[in-house]
Order: sequence, then C-alpha cells, then structure tokens
Amino acid sequence: MKKKIKKINAAILIIGNEILSGRTQDKNIVFISNWLNSKCGITVKEVRIIPDFEKTIIENVLLLSKKFNYVFTTGGIGPTHDDITAKSISKAFKVKYEYHKEAFCILEKYYGKTKFNNGRKKMAKMPKGAKLIYNPSSAAPGFIIKNVLSLPGVPSILNSMIENCKRYLIKGLTTYSETLNLYTVESNISKKLGLIQKKFKKDIEIGSYPFFRLGKIGVAIVTRSHSKLKLKKVSIELKKLARMKKIKILNI
Amino acid sequence: MKKKIKKINAAILIIGNEILSGRTQDKNIVFISNWLNSKCGITVKEVRIIPDFEKTIIENVLLLSKKFNYVFTTGGIGPTHDDITAKSISKAFKVKYEYHKEAFCILEKYYGKTKFNNGRKKMAKMPKGAKLIYNPSSAAPGFIIKNVLSLPGVPSILNSMIENCKRYLIKGLTTYSETLNLYTVESNISKKLGLIQKKFKKDIEIGSYPFFRLGKIGVAIVTRSHSKLKLKKVSIELKKLARMKKIKILNI
Repeated sequence: MKKKIKKINAAILIIGNEILSGRTQDKNIVFISNWLNSKCGITVKEVRIIPDFEKTIIENVLLLSKKFNYVFTTGGIGPTHDDITAKSISKAFKVKYEYHKEAFCILEKYYGKTKFNNGRKKMAKMPKGAKLIYNPSSAAPGFIIKNVLSLPGVPSILNSMIENCKRYLIKGLTTYSETLNLYTVESNISKKLGLIQKKFKKDIEIGSYPFFRLGKIGVAIVTRSHSKLKLKKVSIELKKLARMKKIKILNI
Repeated sequence: MKKKIKKINAAILIIGNEILSGRTQDKNIVFISNWLNSKCGITVKEVRIIPDFEKTIIENVLLLSKKFNYVFTTGGIGPTHDDITAKSISKAFKVKYEYHKEAFCILEKYYGKTKFNNGRKKMAKMPKGAKLIYNPSSAAPGFIIKNVLSLPGVPSILNSMIENCKRYLIKGLTTYSETLNLYTVESNISKKLGLIQKKFKKDIEIGSYPFFRLGKIGVAIVTRSHSKLKLKKVSIELKKLARMKKIKILNI
C-alpha cells in the first residue's frame, strides 16, 4: 500500500536584534522556505522576528511549537553573551541546559584542547535530550529538541547545515508553483482573475504581484498547488484570459 | 518646560504568501525599521510574516495593535482578489469596509472616469474612519486606523510613501548605533565582551556578529543606545579590549 503523504507545515523564528533593527538584511527566510518546500514538501506558514530576549524567545518557542509541525530557529547559538537561544529553549521545555557530550567532543577536536576556551565550550551547551544537527563548515552543531530545530544565524553556515536537518523531518506534500508574467496592470485583470481563483478555490492558490522591468510594468501571476495537473489546467485558463484581453506574455 | 520624550515601539506585519513561500525576498523590514528609528525614534520590537488569510490577519492585527504603540502592515492593498488587508482590518476593528471619499476622488482623477474600473475602485475601499497615507508614485493611498498603518508591498511604492506616515506618529527616543569591526573570532573575546555588557547593562545593548570579508574572518561589535555619551564610553572599553588582545581593528 502506498503511504499517504500529509500536509506538513513549519514556522521560522528569527532571533536577533540585528535583523529587527534593520542593520542586517535577513537571507535565511527565503533559503529555509524554499528548501523546506522543494526538498521536504513542508510549507512555511508563519515567520516571526524577535529580539535576543529570554522571555520573548520562551513564549514564541512554546507557542509556535504547539501551533506548527516544526519550528526552525535561526541565530543566538554562538559563543557570546547575546547568544541565548539554547538556554532559552531549555527553559521553554523545562529541561536542563547542559553540555552535550558529542558536541563537546566535536568542538574539542576542532579547536584542539589548548584553544578550547569557555566561549567555545558554551557552544556545546544545549537542552538535555537534544539531538545534533551537524555543521560541516564551522563545527559548532545546531540541535533539535521536540519539534524545534535550532540553526545559526550566519547564512553561509546555516546553508551548509540544512541537509542535515532532513533526517529529523517527515516528508509532506510538495507545493508546485508556476509563474506567468503579463505585460498589463493588476486592475485590468483583477475581476477575471478573481473568478478563476474562485473556480479553483480548493486546489490552487493564485497570487498577483506587480513588477517593473526595463521600464515596463507588468504583473506576475503565481499559481501554487499540490497538483501538477491542476496547475496545468489553471495555466490554460490564464493564457486564455491573456489572449482575450490582448495582453502580451513575457517569456523569461 | 522641555517635553519628555518616551520610548515608542512598533511591530511590522508583512502580509503575503509570496514572502512566506520564499519566492520573494522581503526588502521592507530593513527599510521601515531603519526609517522608524532614524527619523522617528521608534524601535521595531517584533516582525511577523503571515499569509493572505483573513482570520490570520485579523488575529495578528488585534494582538499586535494591543501589544505595541504602532503596527505597520505591508501588502494586500491592491486591486486583486488576494488583496484582503483593508477588509480584514475593518473586520478586526469591527467597522464598515467602505469607499473612502477622498481616496475615491484621488483614484478617479488619476485613472480618468472611463478607466476607473471596479478593480481600481476597490483600492478606495477602507475601514470606516481611516485616514489616508498619500502615495506620490502610484496614487492608491495607504491608510491608518487606530494605531495600525497599512502600506503596499511593492518596495519602491512603499518607500515613496513612508514620509507621509510621519504626521501620524509620536516621536520617541532615537537609538544611536556604532560598529567596531575586529579581526578576531567571537570566542576569543566572548568572556570580556560579556563583562562589558554587564557593566553597561542598563544603557547599552551590545551585539556580536561574525563576518567574512576578503577571505578573512572577523566580528562586528554593534553597540546601541539612546545615549551618545554612553556609546562613547563603551567604545573606549572595546578599543581597550582590542589592544589588550592585540586584535587589529578594521576601518571601513
């Protein structure tokens, strides 16, 4: 019997004053969301960006881990005073915050015994019972406890670790997506588009996004669905709409 | 008597499937957060990204508008079926969703009577009692109701409108920020840095962010405070720490 694949969702919790203050442009949301959907069939349903503040981290971890199948946190697992994610998650789940044996060994081997100072040792401290998410680029592992996966904030390091999350995730239904770029304005097609969305209400999500390209304005019609067949059907209707309204389709 | 300036905070609520799905890189968070801090002395304390889904929008608008001084929403105020922000905010505050007279006139004048179709008219519909945020680039106004300011999702349009939010905002204390780039690794300075943060606990927030530049690794130490004097004091301590540890400071 074929195993039935379910819809699986996730939330991303970005922990870091530098993102909230506008100092740093976040790059992890796009990366994690695309990876989860294309590689694991998991849909991101909510993102929150919060400061490095213990009470706020605890509240959000508890709330999101109840509400969604998985929570991905980024940031706050380094060696400095403002890295409080692991400690806060321990408190959230009421488990000890202690050295993870394997993480300690990995880091000791990586730095060498003489250079393995307290700051570096801190990166081996995790919630009791956590499992490791290995880090091929800078050794310090992330971790998973219950349904919460903690990754670092530096995009290049996070990117190198993401494949190591896979073993902990249940695969869900992939969302397929198609984009049709039309040389028109939204208000020219909004009525018809609304009718098409109504017709495919159950299976297709249609988004409409204005763009400006080479001095011309247009609208990207993005269709998303778990069914490739349904995507094809809606695409035919959208192209019919473009023909009817004499709208040029932009091939990119 | 000099008016006492208070700490004022805000949340940003990004409404849009295209950001959640990873299709589009958000650019509005960095822009709004920087503008609010530098021009209005308002600190962004939380960001949420949610889908174009009425119930979710209502819940988040109500919750964030209670918790923070201001809420900035982006996205979902265009002419298509997936633009449901104005209607959802009306429902959240239990007021009618109706044509705003002035917005209707602005749009009618912009498009001309014959081209002012239903899609375009939709952009004049707002929560009853809303005030306009004028749009110098594409006419369709944003709005404010209670402490919630609604702006469009297209960054270039949002950017052109932001100054028109100012009249509705109470000015707060500006946060000043300094960055010291050190050619070292975090774990080399984490202990001392923690002690400095402890010493300035009340007035300064110190963040530590690893960077990779021209093949070298370093740490950006970011200090933030409402007091320029305190920033200067902590800067002296940080430079002392660098000298003590023989760490090269990178001037950029």
